[in-house]
Amino acid sequence: MSTEVSPLAPKSFPKLPLVRGVALATAEAGIRYKGRTDVLLASFAPGTAVAGVFTRSRCPSAPVEWCRERIDGGRIRALVVNSGNANAFTGANGRAATRLTAELTAKALGCSEDEIFLCSTGVIGEPLDASKFAGVMDRLAAGVTEDAWEAAARAIMTTDTFPKLATRTAKIGDVKVTINGIAKGAGMIAPDMATMLSFIATDAAIDPDALHELLARAAAKSFNCVTVDGDTSTSDTLLAFATGEAGNRAIRGADDPEAAGFAAALEELAVELAQLVARDGEGARKFVTVEVAGAESDASARKVALSIANSPLVKTAIAGEDANWGRVVMAVGKAGEPADRDLLTIRFGELRVAHKGERDPHYSEAEASAYMKNEAIDIRVDLGLGEGFARVWTCDLTEGYIAINADYRS
Amino acid sequence: MSTEVSPLAPKSFPKLPLVRGVALATAEAGIRYKGRTDVLLASFAPGTAVAGVFTRSRCPSAPVEWCRERIDGGRIRALVVNSGNANAFTGANGRAATRLTAELTAKALGCSEDEIFLCSTGVIGEPLDASKFAGVMDRLAAGVTEDAWEAAARAIMTTDTFPKLATRTAKIGDVKVTINGIAKGAGMIAPDMATMLSFIATDAAIDPDALHELLARAAAKSFNCVTVDGDTSTSDTLLAFATGEAGNRAIRGADDPEAAGFAAALEELAVELAQLVARDGEGARKFVTVEVAGAESDASARKVALSIANSPLVKTAIAGEDANWGRVVMAVGKAGEPADRDLLTIRFGELRVAHKGERDPHYSEAEASAYMKNEAIDIRVDLGLGEGFARVWTCDLTEGYIAINADYRS
Repeated sequence: MSTEVSPLAPKSFPKLPLVRGVALATAEAGIRYKGRTDVLLASFAPGTAVAGVFTRSRCPSAPVEWCRERIDGGRIRALVVNSGNANAFTGANGRAATRLTAELTAKALGCSEDEIFLCSTGVIGEPLDASKFAGVMDRLAAGVTEDAWEAAARAIMTTDTFPKLATRTAKIGDVKVTINGIAKGAGMIAPDMATMLSFIATDAAIDPDALHELLARAAAKSFNCVTVDGDTSTSDTLLAFATGEAGNRAIRGADDPEAAGFAAALEELAVELAQLVARDGEGARKFVTVEVAGAESDASARKVALSIANSPLVKTAIAGEDANWGRVVMAVGKAGEPADRDLLTIRFGELRVAHKGERDPHYSEAEASAYMKNEAIDIRVDLGLGEGFARVWTCDLTEGYIAINADYRS
Repeated sequence: MSTEVSPLAPKSFPKLPLVRGVALATAEAGIRYKGRTDVLLASFAPGTAVAGVFTRSRCPSAPVEWCRERIDGGRIRALVVNSGNANAFTGANGRAATRLTAELTAKALGCSEDEIFLCSTGVIGEPLDASKFAGVMDRLAAGVTEDAWEAAARAIMTTDTFPKLATRTAKIGDVKVTINGIAKGAGMIAPDMATMLSFIATDAAIDPDALHELLARAAAKSFNCVTVDGDTSTSDTLLAFATGEAGNRAIRGADDPEAAGFAAALEELAVELAQLVARDGEGARKFVTVEVAGAESDASARKVALSIANSPLVKTAIAGEDANWGRVVMAVGKAGEPADRDLLTIRFGELRVAHKGERDPHYSEAEASAYMKNEAIDIRVDLGLGEGFARVWTCDLTEGYIAINADYRS
């Protein structure tokens, strides 16, 4: 597994402020990794609202099922996350492991199991030995602190090379509220919900249903617009928590005018986290933004954008700094969406490389090649058919991806 | 670009027999490659029937459009194929290049342009200088010979590391007929029609419509069941030619009982060629067969099989000889087709590794790892829902794929 930090990592990590009502602790439970933290406990003030968006995989993990069964309750007291083992495709053993983990946590915190949410990430199909949590749960529960966001982001990493953190503030009425978010994910990343795991906490007072709607809207513009390899995880989980400790008048509907600033800040934060996932794509050396305009609809634009962003040939060309825009033509052509070759325009950054069904008359291989040396590559396609637009983020495909994934379990 | 022959190449190539009514010649036109042949002329006896299946890309190449406009005529006198330049996304220049090529060929052979078929394969978006054919066309036309099948298969290669040839015989009535086929393709291979280029010639007498139906049926079970990277080419073209020189009573419908043996032989030959394409997948070191049974329909089984065969994580695990069957679970889960995690069975060869929603109780990591050392890997999934079945072929995903594609144009 790679030990080098992605060249696309931010130069520094934000120091996240406190979110009143949220306390965190991490520990080494020895699930799979040695010499690093691999379990996170987040505890929440009583009455904290919770909302979630989950993988659409037909083979979801046991913790995904556990969360789905409890999300409609709308309240959370604790979240437990482990890395190293996904507890996916683990049958009755997997269900027993989630129950045992919830029991241990509920006992340590003195709350109901149905207000415990669980996430696991790592190898699929290995039985998870939840008894390993028993040795650390009391210490975790006693050790939670409001000021452990970076430690939390580190404890949930698998093949990630850096922790992913973001923060925003917004006003609800006259009250300033804080939103913190962390995420993990570097491979098995495709937008059929989200990155593998992301957790967003705010001290705002928001009802669970409104929180869910705001979260789903933000996910559609952020996590659902990122892909590393087109492989959708069995464990994708995005959870949001609203402790209400900021003291604002509670938001009861997503379209409440007072929620507008919060909604915008939440989307910004989610986009930042989603982009960090693409920047830590396994083996990534280039951060790629794909914009498709002029489609018949936004949904159609998104399919074309993902066809480009998931194409191994487009991604290897970017890795090789080769201005092979012909492969973008190929990816548009194979997407199965309305497209007319002879209306197609392709830009690399500001350089128009193809126009109306052929290479741009002013195309310069030298200019295009120089552009490909950039660390951030923008591919912009105009289909020339309508008003549909989409923007997605991905990374290049390098030997590093192969090396990481050819021996992941060993 | 790789110069080593794929380790999955056949140990020897079949010596193809003559197909009466078909003559072949190759030449070095210097389209892109130096020191190797890059243009093929096949000439056919007057009255030869032709049928074709083409890419479904919305951005097809100029030669694909040329062929599509003429295929309903049902007759062919000559085929011209060049490698090194796909003449795709080349606008008016591309159309002029196809016309010029057809004119040169028609003049050299003394036939109508509308009985000339054209195929090009190579870089997308570069203008094709068709005047280069002018220097070689007369020599090609004068030099055609019935005994040049291997030379023909070599002239159409791009990143292929070995020529792809297959042959079969069948009986139509009492008459023995021969079928020869060649193919090229190693990357930008995904089954939305066919491999990039394949040509199948027979001396049987078959009407164009019947030939088309037989060809489409064979393609559905062969070329449309192979994928290297999920990237569909702008140039995919499969053409079949029936010269009628064998003297059988002409087949006028695909369901003519006398055509049954021919249909079976044609499908076998197409499967052999399609498998050769997977065996020459860019960077391939393992040949992979994915079988999905128990689906709600054959179409559903095919989607699940392709989700597995196109998954970068499944393919890199195979490259790493890692029995990571959890990634097969992931690929089933993301396919979007009906599936029930708790009915799922997965086998690697004869080894049952997962059963009813969890790891098989008799799973042995040592056995599974030993199996992964094989050069040919069979992944067999039973969804446990119905009778739907599909089989597709692919290869692993290695650093070689990245190396080949990161610098393809340079």
